[in-house]
Amino acid sequence: MIKAGIVGGTGYTGVELLRLLAAHPEVKLEVITSRSEEGMPVAEMYPNLRGHVELCFSVPDMAVLKACDVVFFATPNGIAMTMAAELLDAGVKVIDLAADFRLQDAQEWAAWYGQPHACPELISEAVYGLPEVNREAIRTASLVANPGCYPTAVQLGLLPLIENGLVETANLIADAKSGVSGAGRKATVATLLGEASENFKAYAVSGHRHLPEIRQGLQQATAEKIGLTFVPHLTPMIRGIHATCYAVLKSAKVDLQAVFETRYADEPFVDVLPSGSHPETRSVRGANTCRIAIHRPQDGNTVVVLSVIDNLVKGAAGQAVHNMNIMFDFVEDYGLQGIPLIP
Amino acid sequence: MIKAGIVGGTGYTGVELLRLLAAHPEVKLEVITSRSEEGMPVAEMYPNLRGHVELCFSVPDMAVLKACDVVFFATPNGIAMTMAAELLDAGVKVIDLAADFRLQDAQEWAAWYGQPHACPELISEAVYGLPEVNREAIRTASLVANPGCYPTAVQLGLLPLIENGLVETANLIADAKSGVSGAGRKATVATLLGEASENFKAYAVSGHRHLPEIRQGLQQATAEKIGLTFVPHLTPMIRGIHATCYAVLKSAKVDLQAVFETRYADEPFVDVLPSGSHPETRSVRGANTCRIAIHRPQDGNTVVVLSVIDNLVKGAAGQAVHNMNIMFDFVEDYGLQGIPLIP
Amino acid sequence: MIKAGIVGGTGYTGVELLRLLAAHPEVKLEVITSRSEEGMPVAEMYPNLRGHVELCFSVPDMAVLKACDVVFFATPNGIAMTMAAELLDAGVKVIDLAADFRLQDAQEWAAWYGQPHACPELISEAVYGLPEVNREAIRTASLVANPGCYPTAVQLGLLPLIENGLVETANLIADAKSGVSGAGRKATVATLLGEASENFKAYAVSGHRHLPEIRQGLQQATAEKIGLTFVPHLTPMIRGIHATCYAVLKSAKVDLQAVFETRYADEPFVDVLPSGSHPETRSVRGANTCRIAIHRPQDGNTVVVLSVIDNLVKGAAGQAVHNMNIMFDFVEDYGLQGIPLIP
Amino acid sequence: MIKAGIVGGTGYTGVELLRLLAAHPEVKLEVITSRSEEGMPVAEMYPNLRGHVELCFSVPDMAVLKACDVVFFATPNGIAMTMAAELLDAGVKVIDLAADFRLQDAQEWAAWYGQPHACPELISEAVYGLPEVNREAIRTASLVANPGCYPTAVQLGLLPLIENGLVETANLIADAKSGVSGAGRKATVATLLGEASENFKAYAVSGHRHLPEIRQGLQQATAEKIGLTFVPHLTPMIRGIHATCYAVLKSAKVDLQAVFETRYADEPFVDVLPSGSHPETRSVRGANTCRIAIHRPQDGNTVVVLSVIDNLVKGAAGQAVHNMNIMFDFVEDYGLQGIPLIP
Repeated sequence: MIKAGIVGGTGYTGVELLRLLAAHPEVKLEVITSRSEEGMPVAEMYPNLRGHVELCFSVPDMAVLKACDVVFFATPNGIAMTMAAELLDAGVKVIDLAADFRLQDAQEWAAWYGQPHACPELISEAVYGLPEVNREAIRTASLVANPGCYPTAVQLGLLPLIENGLVETANLIADAKSGVSGAGRKATVATLLGEASENFKAYAVSGHRHLPEIRQGLQQATAEKIGLTFVPHLTPMIRGIHATCYAVLKSAKVDLQAVFETRYADEPFVDVLPSGSHPETRSVRGANTCRIAIHRPQDGNTVVVLSVIDNLVKGAAGQAVHNMNIMFDFVEDYGLQGIPLIP
Repeated sequence: MIKAGIVGGTGYTGVELLRLLAAHPEVKLEVITSRSEEGMPVAEMYPNLRGHVELCFSVPDMAVLKACDVVFFATPNGIAMTMAAELLDAGVKVIDLAADFRLQDAQEWAAWYGQPHACPELISEAVYGLPEVNREAIRTASLVANPGCYPTAVQLGLLPLIENGLVETANLIADAKSGVSGAGRKATVATLLGEASENFKAYAVSGHRHLPEIRQGLQQATAEKIGLTFVPHLTPMIRGIHATCYAVLKSAKVDLQAVFETRYADEPFVDVLPSGSHPETRSVRGANTCRIAIHRPQDGNTVVVLSVIDNLVKGAAGQAVHNMNIMFDFVEDYGLQGIPLIP
Repeated sequence: MIKAGIVGGTGYTGVELLRLLAAHPEVKLEVITSRSEEGMPVAEMYPNLRGHVELCFSVPDMAVLKACDVVFFATPNGIAMTMAAELLDAGVKVIDLAADFRLQDAQEWAAWYGQPHACPELISEAVYGLPEVNREAIRTASLVANPGCYPTAVQLGLLPLIENGLVETANLIADAKSGVSGAGRKATVATLLGEASENFKAYAVSGHRHLPEIRQGLQQATAEKIGLTFVPHLTPMIRGIHATCYAVLKSAKVDLQAVFETRYADEPFVDVLPSGSHPETRSVRGANTCRIAIHRPQDGNTVVVLSVIDNLVKGAAGQAVHNMNIMFDFVEDYGLQGIPLIP
Repeated sequence: MIKAGIVGGTGYTGVELLRLLAAHPEVKLEVITSRSEEGMPVAEMYPNLRGHVELCFSVPDMAVLKACDVVFFATPNGIAMTMAAELLDAGVKVIDLAADFRLQDAQEWAAWYGQPHACPELISEAVYGLPEVNREAIRTASLVANPGCYPTAVQLGLLPLIENGLVETANLIADAKSGVSGAGRKATVATLLGEASENFKAYAVSGHRHLPEIRQGLQQATAEKIGLTFVPHLTPMIRGIHATCYAVLKSAKVDLQAVFETRYADEPFVDVLPSGSHPETRSVRGANTCRIAIHRPQDGNTVVVLSVIDNLVKGAAGQAVHNMNIMFDFVEDYGLQGIPLIP
């Protein structure tokens, strides 16, 4: 049993971490912090946790956090980078579910996130926590930058094509659709049921913060220059991301299905569907699985990859638990074996 | 490990049984039948089960079913009553999730279900599977009639009041709201998303099949005559039942909160919320829990009980698994420990 | 053509007023105020109005408002009562869609709304704008208190029973369900899609502000003492209220269907459905109609009245326009002839 | 006043036609046919039409239809092609909302629709009813093939780019998302609320019937070869299509905003939004408007066009009424002036 702490647990990634860690056979939940909700029982804010989690929110206390084996940051961007160093120095492993350590370039980070990076010296130490790419590095990492939700769905969909040099990399397209929980639990007009239900729209077409993160991940897989158009959309549901990725094939003579099946053969959380399938977001609701299907419509030169995840699990808290399992040498699917709910 | 079979597994109660039994530590899924889908892998119809259930649907075969320790009927009404006797004779325990054995009066059954009862001699042998009322009888039962979804929510909400003689029984009201999964997975116009979404309506106000079942359950708790008005409504969501029950108090001098807390003190799946609470259906989504709150608005003579369940779990498959656990002397919450998903 | 102004037009009642008034043959929209959005074109906040409304939001200016023939208050509670007197003195007719003038008792108002009433002397002058009850008074009124959404649905459902002395008035029950637009357009966590979708709950069971308003309206129809239990619920959809009303009949010998049909025979916006019907909220979406069905389950002594409205139309902006039409002697359904959208 | 008939009016396009025609100042609804629902009042199936449409469904009767000035086919594919000739011979104008006359090539039609074309000789006579392309031909047409929903949204989004030779035509991408009403009102499991809500998926990626229709429309605008990848998705809402179109620019030196604004300057039903906008499907709900926004992310060589319509209005019934208005020389927006409902 290890001791785990969560900083900033009132948001959707926080409650999802609690749901997963509460059922984890090797984890004891030690502390969950929130300045604004100090003293409130977690189960009062999240009634699904009644009977499962007895903790109350508490004000962040470094001494308490340092007594943990691992600390998760489920905070807004910009918090982890101010606290991580001290925890790492104390020998605590840190997994940041926010974006603070995802980009390798501190200046690019500052440009996209609208603030200077408070701790650029830790960036090179941080391992980007996409296990399907960085499993070995994660194993020995002290600081893991947990990937964003869109970047997880899009990279898993496009990487096999790029790693194998199968597509033109200059005009990649990722048309992604997300449920509203991706926007978090903060009160905003745009995500009210009265505004977001019975409605569909694109947003941030001119540039979304996940664009540089995806581009960086794809670029690391090839020497060719990556050109990516990324368009996120808001879809009227709570959970789920569906990425529809388009690329132009260099050659028609390739068994795409085999490429993907081989690439992910040993991955416990990537499920390549049979040829001709259409993955549904609900098929992974609550699960840490990414399901992928590959199409080549009309046997043309355009490949279409469909990739679905639960944005709060494989796109956030589940992947964080997966990373923890790897870092602490637990069985990789501990705490992640729940079966999605259908209907 | 016991061997379990499911007859008629293509509907929502069927898939929910599969989800729960697949993760049950004492159960081996042996067979799941469907005439129409013979040969189809279960996980093809229900992609959430990919990687969890390897079975294919098969045509019902008595020899195979008789080799099971327990057989669940997740069939339409009228099937279990034609097959149960033979299975019971073979020593198989039977849990019927349909309505065949819920009413004690075969003629009343025939009147409400529009067909003669095929097996009236088994009715008296059947135990009504509401553990909070019949736990001891369930322990030794061979045939369990698993309660309906509305009857579960309404009875758990009203029984403490009636058992303790606290309310006038002549004019009870149960105003119940259900998600559309209660109507099952069959293709009907009324439950299309285009018809049922962004819409709210009552239905079957003149008389719903669950009315006699609820009335029977309440009547067994008192010598006074039960008069019940039951109005079900369809609400635009997938899972969940919210029953709002109204009764007139005989006396104002009673601590209703204490009555309910005492009544359900030892029940693992009934959660009496703190005074003043408003239970949410999502707080039990996917879980076998019934959450209840008691109100007496303006300190008047009307008590309002709010009772929520997941219609497919505590209202169907979960309660069936609970009954199985009791019948086979397993720990009562085996297979039923999953934490609801919020958001 | 009359000139109309709207104070506080950024909320859902405001945009709905704009939608209706923009198509009204006798109304010229003169001004719409909002302190926070000064200068923003209305159609930028509400893209449905692009091409239909050219106005920009402006800071409230008494001179401009006084030049109107009618001013609607679509403000939070507590604003109209500070501005109405001056407008009335200038000969402007005022229709308040908030609650400032709904209760006849200023002290009761203060108790429920948590602030002293700023203008108690106008209360007796205000006419409660339920045309089916007060049409003649509305015709000559200068100040109309537009009814709340729940009160409209519940009163229209119960009044025929009470006016005709058909039911026991001591234990009336109104179980009401509303879409989330009833909570307005302000950003709150509870009405986020991530919180309110796939969920059903009661709220304010201990006492909702619409309770005294309904009670007052029912009490005015009878000398017997009204006892009412009112339980509102939040249902996962945008628009619509469904009130399910229960009362105990004094006598079984009454043709309830005829009572309702007679009561509303001349009402353009109340539609009594054929016996046995179940009105759907979507059947009135966007329309000023209240549809009602009457049931007496199992021919018992309990009458069940089902009453549906669009909370933003008959429950707010549409009824306000109806009141205006009566006050200015326009054809009653001017601007209110749109056909609901199904699906 | 002209006399209008509708063949096959029980589906969603049928009820939408009724909603629009019932309020049209120059149209008298004469007959609406349905074999299965003969004798049922239309307003019983569609309660929104209560008080607006008095017609009952009747069995198709050629004599009655021939007495109309215009007959709309809101039937499944394959019906209009067996009845159109006789009506045209009788001088009746015919507008087919199904696909029978959309493709110029009868063999291609047969291949995509799985049946031989019953009336190939009429194909060349039929005018494809996209007013923004064929207004003059529609004016004198006797037979109009009303466009499909996806083809309307995609063509309006891509045509200005193609007509002006601005993009590479070999690798166009149309990623389209539709509400479930696009699948019609027939009972199917896939469009149950229990299946389609809280879920997002692509479908028919290998080839959708609207692909050849879109390709034909785009090809007519250029001599260059059109290569199109079209991926439709099902989104959990009732109405609305959002098409996200991608193309590679030949040159960066072009004012795309001006190109679109000029192209649609005189079109009453195409609204080019200000630069940087993100159109929402709800902004056109119930309206015949197509709203379009143009983006060039990161000033790269990929243009992204966002195009939204209401699939049942501009994508079906509304466009049919628009075509009728043009054919009979009515004001183009007669019957189409309704303002969308927000929220």
